[in-house]
Amino acid sequence: MNVLIIGGGGFIGQKLARRLAQKGELRGKPITRLRLADLSAPPVIDAPFPVETLACDISDRASVDAAVTAEDEVIYHLAAVVSAHAEADLDAGLQVNLFGVYNVLERCRALQSNPVLVFTSSLAVFGGEVPDPIEDWTALNPQSSYGAQKAMGEFLVNDYSRRGLIRGRGFRLPTIAVRPGKPNRAASSFMSSIIREPLNGEEAICPVAPDFLHYYLSPKRCVENLIRGTELEQEQLGQNVCMTMPGQTRTIGQMIDAMTAVAGPEPAKLIRWEEQPEIQRIVSTWRFDYRPEKALALGLEADASFEENVRFYLEEDK
Amino acid sequence: MNVLIIGGGGFIGQKLARRLAQKGELRGKPITRLRLADLSAPPVIDAPFPVETLACDISDRASVDAAVTAEDEVIYHLAAVVSAHAEADLDAGLQVNLFGVYNVLERCRALQSNPVLVFTSSLAVFGGEVPDPIEDWTALNPQSSYGAQKAMGEFLVNDYSRRGLIRGRGFRLPTIAVRPGKPNRAASSFMSSIIREPLNGEEAICPVAPDFLHYYLSPKRCVENLIRGTELEQEQLGQNVCMTMPGQTRTIGQMIDAMTAVAGPEPAKLIRWEEQPEIQRIVSTWRFDYRPEKALALGLEADASFEENVRFYLEEDK
Repeated sequence: MNVLIIGGGGFIGQKLARRLAQKGELRGKPITRLRLADLSAPPVIDAPFPVETLACDISDRASVDAAVTAEDEVIYHLAAVVSAHAEADLDAGLQVNLFGVYNVLERCRALQSNPVLVFTSSLAVFGGEVPDPIEDWTALNPQSSYGAQKAMGEFLVNDYSRRGLIRGRGFRLPTIAVRPGKPNRAASSFMSSIIREPLNGEEAICPVAPDFLHYYLSPKRCVENLIRGTELEQEQLGQNVCMTMPGQTRTIGQMIDAMTAVAGPEPAKLIRWEEQPEIQRIVSTWRFDYRPEKALALGLEADASFEENVRFYLEEDK
Repeated sequence: MNVLIIGGGGFIGQKLARRLAQKGELRGKPITRLRLADLSAPPVIDAPFPVETLACDISDRASVDAAVTAEDEVIYHLAAVVSAHAEADLDAGLQVNLFGVYNVLERCRALQSNPVLVFTSSLAVFGGEVPDPIEDWTALNPQSSYGAQKAMGEFLVNDYSRRGLIRGRGFRLPTIAVRPGKPNRAASSFMSSIIREPLNGEEAICPVAPDFLHYYLSPKRCVENLIRGTELEQEQLGQNVCMTMPGQTRTIGQMIDAMTAVAGPEPAKLIRWEEQPEIQRIVSTWRFDYRPEKALALGLEADASFEENVRFYLEEDK
């Protein structure tokens, strides 16, 4: 079983790679090779099988053709231009989030290799006038370019799957928290910062009010869900292979309470409340009331409490 | 008011052009020029204002750049590779139905002309596992490449509209019947043939059973709805500028009864019943139970009966 992770230099890509190294097998077969591709060649990880890293710009078809081989039986497509970046630069978003997906799918089509392709979409595909709650068959009505591009990626993955060119499946990731590392250009970046920085003894800015509700998943559970999604047979996925990955709905206040329950009262004092209208404008178009019945029935899971998210960060990612 | 119809050589494009010639105005301003673009320069129509025709391949950005000018205040984007063709030739469908739309929107963006852009989508965006009835906020779940490409076109039109680059609006056309002329490569082609050919004294093949239910709109009412859709202000369109155009749900048997009511018993005898599995496979994934509340509230209309569709054909299109 040869595995390729496109976006393998990102946080989820690296964490998935380490988890695959630990598991050693996928879809019932031993992993014989893992390749990690990203804009610049990602860090190698330790594994009991060969790990290669390579640079690949998915917006460039030749670069994709060089990176994706007929031996890649499972391909994770995690690469993306994130929300605030895609909103600021329409071209960058379209080139990566739409044409990048197209290039990868076209390469699979040309190879006739019919790989299992795991695509990460986003809950930013939802929004607009659509009534709550968001169910499996609620219309996508994105109110950001990132969401629109991810929605189009879903339709490509669905159509190439329906045509038998890939064994595709897509998962709309809840906001991943607590992410390690530095803030990024995602509008959701603060949703990890307000927990991560205080746990590290640093100040963090919260640009929204404590009652702001959102939908979260820990990095650990996200990786487990991606692997569970990989194991599924195509027949199980039905006529829409893209679905919402389960998460938990929490207020900012509840998240901070969970941090206090796990780590004591000091970290919460490091949060500075400072409203940021541009961030608020984007994140207020996102939804928090989801019913991901299809994914739950297929065995994907949410975290049991936000305390788990805090503990997973301290145990695995700090 | 300068108007451009891309796909102006097609049946709806020509009929729309003739109706605009009759009206002489659009959005409260006199029409000063009409340009009709298609793969080869379309027929000129008679009008009280200058009419130009030009060749444009929307899959080619340079061709689009030459065709779309800053003076085009209203652009109709009707050009498409139709359903059976897009299913048989994935590249042709993507080049026209996805990248063609992108090229036109990018041209508008580069011009900073913010035109009213009227996009025709299709009910083929619906299908799959989504429960009936299809409401305004039902997920798109196409089961054909044509449907997937039209869905992606909708997301582009929505996002470019949201960004203020166009004043876009999209309408998912019901199956247009009775179409004049010859059968085409659309899987729905027979839905006009079985009425049109018999009314012209010719034999027609019906590839589905008499109880096959589908959703129809006359060409005349379709053009009126496109014009009504053009007149709408952007604020009226809300956060999803693409919607289902109203139609009426009828069985093949009801359509033939309507033909008999209008034209007597002879035409129905010219229908030959001959099941065609490939056509059935495609059309059976389409839906017939629609509730286009948003479009109805905005003043778009369905035909009152299928007798109207038969009469409109005899009066206007035969």
